[in-house]
Amino acid sequence: MSETSTLARVTVRLKRAILDPQGRAVQGTLHRLGHDAVEGLRVGKVIEFTLPGTPEEVRAQVDAIAADVLANPVMEDVEVTLEPVPASEGETGT
Amino acid sequence: MSETSTLARVTVRLKRAILDPQGRAVQGTLHRLGHDAVEGLRVGKVIEFTLPGTPEEVRAQVDAIAADVLANPVMEDVEVTLEPVPASEGETGT
Repeated sequence: MSETSTLARVTVRLKRAILDPQGRAVQGTLHRLGHDAVEGLRVGKVIEFTLPGTPEEVRAQVDAIAADVLANPVMEDVEVTLEPVPASEGETGT
Repeated sequence: MSETSTLARVTVRLKRAILDPQGRAVQGTLHRLGHDAVEGLRVGKVIEFTLPGTPEEVRAQVDAIAADVLANPVMEDVEVTLEPVPASEGETGT
């Protein structure tokens, strides 16, 4: 088994054309607190996990997980980043 | 007024010591779908917005927004990244 693990970070954002009521509410709160210059605020999700193997070895699997399970491709865009971590650091609990 | 805007990205994660039931549920789903090697899955939030000014000019304001409004420092860690964007690109709706 590979001694390297990969930290996968999947960022899921609503597509620009989709209204984001949560983002609008947060932006309204910031405006009321005096941060009037904040614009275009959007709230997304970031899902992070580890897999054994190098980034090259796990890329196809992570892309499939991101597109098929973690995001709704009709309404959301998804971005995947992968970085190697020593295998011992990958053994974190949930 | 500055011609540069800054895209601020604030990532909010539950602290490692705090249980993440949503992350545990997603990881369980991935295991049932055959992605058994996924470990340590955590779900966080990413809040993105623009502000007029350069990253240097807005850093203190964004740090204050992140720490005081967007995250609960008792339970969550917060990470801020700033990147300059042409001002015209900053004028996006919510």
